[in-house]
Amino acid sequence: MDRLLKQTVSAELRNLFGDRVTENTEIRNEHGAGYSYHACMPPDWVVFPRSTEEIAALVSICGTHQIPIIPFGAGTSLEGHILALKGGVCVDLRLMNQILEIDTANMCATVQAGVTRNQLDERLAGSGFFFPIGPGVNATLGGMASTRASGTNAVRYGTMKDNVLSLTVVLPDGKVIKTASKARKSSSGYDLTRLFIGSEGTLGILADLTIRLHSYPEAIYAAVCSFQNVEAAVNTAIKTIQAGVAIAKIELLDDLLMHAVNRYSGLAYPEKPTLLLEFQGSPAEIEAQITAVQAFARSFGATDFIWEKEEVARMKLWQARTDAAPAARAMVPGSKLMSTDVCVPISRLAECIVDTQADIAATGLFAPILGHVGDGNFHLSIPIDPAVPGQFEKAKALNERLVQRALALEGTCSGEHGIGVGKLAYLAQEHGEALEVMRAIKKAIDPTNLMNPGKLLPPVL
Amino acid sequence: MDRLLKQTVSAELRNLFGDRVTENTEIRNEHGAGYSYHACMPPDWVVFPRSTEEIAALVSICGTHQIPIIPFGAGTSLEGHILALKGGVCVDLRLMNQILEIDTANMCATVQAGVTRNQLDERLAGSGFFFPIGPGVNATLGGMASTRASGTNAVRYGTMKDNVLSLTVVLPDGKVIKTASKARKSSSGYDLTRLFIGSEGTLGILADLTIRLHSYPEAIYAAVCSFQNVEAAVNTAIKTIQAGVAIAKIELLDDLLMHAVNRYSGLAYPEKPTLLLEFQGSPAEIEAQITAVQAFARSFGATDFIWEKEEVARMKLWQARTDAAPAARAMVPGSKLMSTDVCVPISRLAECIVDTQADIAATGLFAPILGHVGDGNFHLSIPIDPAVPGQFEKAKALNERLVQRALALEGTCSGEHGIGVGKLAYLAQEHGEALEVMRAIKKAIDPTNLMNPGKLLPPVL
Repeated sequence: MDRLLKQTVSAELRNLFGDRVTENTEIRNEHGAGYSYHACMPPDWVVFPRSTEEIAALVSICGTHQIPIIPFGAGTSLEGHILALKGGVCVDLRLMNQILEIDTANMCATVQAGVTRNQLDERLAGSGFFFPIGPGVNATLGGMASTRASGTNAVRYGTMKDNVLSLTVVLPDGKVIKTASKARKSSSGYDLTRLFIGSEGTLGILADLTIRLHSYPEAIYAAVCSFQNVEAAVNTAIKTIQAGVAIAKIELLDDLLMHAVNRYSGLAYPEKPTLLLEFQGSPAEIEAQITAVQAFARSFGATDFIWEKEEVARMKLWQARTDAAPAARAMVPGSKLMSTDVCVPISRLAECIVDTQADIAATGLFAPILGHVGDGNFHLSIPIDPAVPGQFEKAKALNERLVQRALALEGTCSGEHGIGVGKLAYLAQEHGEALEVMRAIKKAIDPTNLMNPGKLLPPVL
Repeated sequence: MDRLLKQTVSAELRNLFGDRVTENTEIRNEHGAGYSYHACMPPDWVVFPRSTEEIAALVSICGTHQIPIIPFGAGTSLEGHILALKGGVCVDLRLMNQILEIDTANMCATVQAGVTRNQLDERLAGSGFFFPIGPGVNATLGGMASTRASGTNAVRYGTMKDNVLSLTVVLPDGKVIKTASKARKSSSGYDLTRLFIGSEGTLGILADLTIRLHSYPEAIYAAVCSFQNVEAAVNTAIKTIQAGVAIAKIELLDDLLMHAVNRYSGLAYPEKPTLLLEFQGSPAEIEAQITAVQAFARSFGATDFIWEKEEVARMKLWQARTDAAPAARAMVPGSKLMSTDVCVPISRLAECIVDTQADIAATGLFAPILGHVGDGNFHLSIPIDPAVPGQFEKAKALNERLVQRALALEGTCSGEHGIGVGKLAYLAQEHGEALEVMRAIKKAIDPTNLMNPGKLLPPVL
């Protein structure tokens, strides 16, 4: 960047943000990669706005000088969404962490984009309501909306797209819009809410969200069920979904991951392909669900469920599940984690996972499988030892084959992590001509490509 | 239209469609208004394509000559979506009525846009699966997606936006895109599926849809519950939703409508404000739901439920509900029906309905209220006698006040009927600056305004 331009922009940012703008190298580096495996690309500035108005003023400055803007939540994205590919201003939303309204009468809440999952959970504790969407990290709600996140509860409650009523968005021209009302449904105009959900900061900056709350279930039971092979576990999940059982969570951990999890979390579950299950509802509903799922599991050769009915044991189980990624990483000391995910139609899931396991075995990598199998979605978490030459390239090639396998099985290159820069190469193949519609929309809303440039949409060749 | 241009286009259309293009006045008039109360505006041609390829070829002809294109399903739209405001070609999709695939393993089906609800229901009968979205008429699936339709089951199953996995769309430039895969979730790219759902034919023509199927419930019970006043009925519905009861249907009919329905369908329910309820699930789930809802109803002064547990009686009840609009119309012989709907946050619903009833009473119109009250959505069905001067204007003014009331209560000008031409006047008020984003998207995808011009987006002043 031109030195004079940089001075001008710095002055304007300081004028707007005072000591809430920084060019500190360490802070910039912290904002340049997040949890993703991609090499850090720090922004030129990091700013910490406190209000929608400040974001709008920032966007005006950046528009005037054509400086890229990269929204930043908790930095937990996995596909390089926050890399400052072309420098610019990283907008860290952590000070926009007000829970603006808990509206239990309408079963919704309005939160600023920087509110985190844990913060919201704490606030809702004891209210009789909860927000079901939870990726395995303490992400911000704005970040979760931006990547169309989901997690373990999605099989019953859907993803972010199903649980956001409305967004306040600062557009690339500095205007502020509200995408919808608080009404539970509407046939009024284009669905801008869903357009911005999953747009990864490329169309505007989410300032606040009105999200749907759900009634806290009367009872919750969790169970662990081991299988002789991964196919049996996946087929049990498939049968459960096809039978219409409204199961709340149905998570697959392969034998490698069960070993890692036991070691990391001090547990002693069988180290076999395993389903972690959660049932929610009235005791009668749960009983009916359990009877059905147990019958499916037995028909695929499983033995008994290990029950975790008490809250403490249940929380410990799900914490272990949440810690699956660090558990995998701990298996290779000093490693950095490459995480990837795909999603396929559920009828193709067993085939996709079995073939992927064979592929992994051939690479010699430690790459355990973790699946939200009720949705047909699964992850590889691959700890990469920087000291071993060629591991990163092997993992990248494995990821490439995984995506090709998913696309060949009528799936998608990402179930919940998003595109960022990590999956850009597959957009054209997955979407064909529809990619041109996405480009047209981007150009219409952000004509000078100010908003998170280089993400979600691959460069035009 | 220029005579020579018309001759040229006619020749090209005949070349493409043979005897499946018509300029017959009667057929054109049939396609110029549908069920809506707006004055008929016939298209210049009606064509009946048989394939996506034919639609694409049609779009190319229309693009070359800049002829407007109006997609047409079953003509059941209520807000003038199919009026040929600027003439052009009406694309009647009734020959595109193939159910292309029932994929029970993935709980989805792919249907051409002209497949109707009843046709799909018949095909699914006995399969163990059903499609939950049903407006009160035999609409096409393409039409339902175009208006983001919902209906009685939406309170439990969501609207069309929640039940479509993917669309095949012919774009204004003649290209054909698929908006998504069959995977249950994806974080890959902008959500084009949701963008086209509810776009009312203004961005392209839906050629086929992949829709989600749901497991047919183990048991279904229906009940009728009368109240002393409409507020008590609405408050029972509000409590039910706020308690998280997964009720399948909760419909309000006011006393006027109960009278009309009894008369029209030969029934003898109490002619008081009434909730029609449906419970779905296992007998144990249903029992729990019923216990909860009965307690709420009693707390608001209701007496016992009238049960319709047998399928025949249940079907008769819901047929009577479906016939509510013609029943209202039959109260004023020779009348034409004006239907309108709004949706408000559920906490404001009682207030909105009570105030609307007072407003109706002051007009002297017969305007019964029918509500999908679990969603905060309700309808007025106003039979207008053309022989009575001033009735139409009175009804229009009532509709205007209804919309203003809904917007003032943080609601939306349409819960499920859409904008068409009937609600154009409220878009700017409801959406503010967001309307400009909608306009930018329209211009990006349909730069010459070929697709259903004059609908959904109000003219720029």
